[in-house]
Amino acid sequence: MSITFIQAQRMAEAAKKKAEEIGVAMNIAIVDEAAIIKLFIRMDNTILASVDISIKKARTSCLCGMDSGEVGKLSQPGGPLYNIELTNGGLVSFPGGILLKDSKGKITGAIGVSGGEVEQDYAVATVGAAAFKE
Amino acid sequence: MSITFIQAQRMAEAAKKKAEEIGVAMNIAIVDEAAIIKLFIRMDNTILASVDISIKKARTSCLCGMDSGEVGKLSQPGGPLYNIELTNGGLVSFPGGILLKDSKGKITGAIGVSGGEVEQDYAVATVGAAAFKE
Amino acid sequence: MSITFIQAQRMAEAAKKKAEEIGVAMNIAIVDEAAIIKLFIRMDNTILASVDISIKKARTSCLCGMDSGEVGKLSQPGGPLYNIELTNGGLVSFPGGILLKDSKGKITGAIGVSGGEVEQDYAVATVGAAAFKE
Amino acid sequence: MSITFIQAQRMAEAAKKKAEEIGVAMNIAIVDEAAIIKLFIRMDNTILASVDISIKKARTSCLCGMDSGEVGKLSQPGGPLYNIELTNGGLVSFPGGILLKDSKGKITGAIGVSGGEVEQDYAVATVGAAAFKE
Repeated sequence: MSITFIQAQRMAEAAKKKAEEIGVAMNIAIVDEAAIIKLFIRMDNTILASVDISIKKARTSCLCGMDSGEVGKLSQPGGPLYNIELTNGGLVSFPGGILLKDSKGKITGAIGVSGGEVEQDYAVATVGAAAFKE
Repeated sequence: MSITFIQAQRMAEAAKKKAEEIGVAMNIAIVDEAAIIKLFIRMDNTILASVDISIKKARTSCLCGMDSGEVGKLSQPGGPLYNIELTNGGLVSFPGGILLKDSKGKITGAIGVSGGEVEQDYAVATVGAAAFKE
Repeated sequence: MSITFIQAQRMAEAAKKKAEEIGVAMNIAIVDEAAIIKLFIRMDNTILASVDISIKKARTSCLCGMDSGEVGKLSQPGGPLYNIELTNGGLVSFPGGILLKDSKGKITGAIGVSGGEVEQDYAVATVGAAAFKE
Repeated sequence: MSITFIQAQRMAEAAKKKAEEIGVAMNIAIVDEAAIIKLFIRMDNTILASVDISIKKARTSCLCGMDSGEVGKLSQPGGPLYNIELTNGGLVSFPGGILLKDSKGKITGAIGVSGGEVEQDYAVATVGAAAFKE
């Protein structure tokens, strides 16, 4: 089942609240099970590069069926998916994208966050993803 | 001055409420003065083509400095801007994109709506644009 | 022979001076005989869509071997080159792009201008092109 | 505040003079605070690949909020932003792009230079960036 607008909105609000708590302007993107954008918000004064990165983190997680940071473990030189980032119109393989699954383990979408340090992005995405399951 | 997140959120909410009133699922996209995406929402069950169209309507209005439907009056066969839609990564020249200006007449962004009949899209975008000025 | 930097600079200065005379902010793009950008200037406060359009007008003129407006006469519905604008990464078929040839009739580049009414763009491009031959 | 044409022109002239001093043909690109091209010049006989690289160096610096070479320190295999170059339509993460900020620390644009060895590109970009502050 596809992610609903209500779910996406709840996730974005939770993630945005977390971003405000740590004091970093973030972009928050949520895609459905086909990696099509469902919701996107850009807080004021984010780094411009992070707009596209947040969306690509969400897309990457959904398209690859794993968190974006997991892709990065496989895409390094010598790794099994070396330079997979060049496919699918551009993927992002560092943390900040989290896959969403329903109770049966089926992919329902993903959230991608960008704007701060990678660890901050991941923390905010984690909070957003947790709100999906509420 | 660039559109703020608060302004974009208020616009999206007003537009979404209008879309719900007329009972049509819509995509609502808001861009800043450089035509960079600021906020995007997709209601449940929109036609998939309308995702990209809503964003391009907003981009078109901002980049061309006029509502998207005004571009269409100039881009018809034999018109002065025939096939301008092929520039700037793809423009959309039918109604549903509305330009936003501040009190000094400076471009601050644009809203683009897609999902219903063109007249419906335009009506929803108009309500969203009106909320910018509140 | 390829257009030189000195020639491109002289053309851009002449075109910019004309744009200032008519009081319209313009983008001026000059490409070489392979349609590769040689010089580009954006005056302050041009319409954003016109950045890409100026470059595509120059590219179109060079790639098609004729002024951009001549392409538009052939690309209309029912015409021999209908929708040729979709090719070559996007062409622009309204006036404002002018082909440059050397004394032997060989293509040496093109100039593209955008920012005002089509007639204004064409007038500015004409002045720029004339400076090529000096 | 956005970079002005006068500023961009002064920067390009200073950079070009430096390139001539070291005897290497260079491309010099300047973008505004939204990473949109403001001015571009290609000296005669530059390597063709360097045209796009100079523009992407300027875009990268502006979009990422740091000099292009700084991005490269983070984007190496195993680094926190590995393969970020695949985002935003293509970034360049080696030196030659320099970020421009106003006296309040706000991003106003960037300059990108390419055509010589990376150290030469960086030296020329540095001279161009210094002319911004005059």
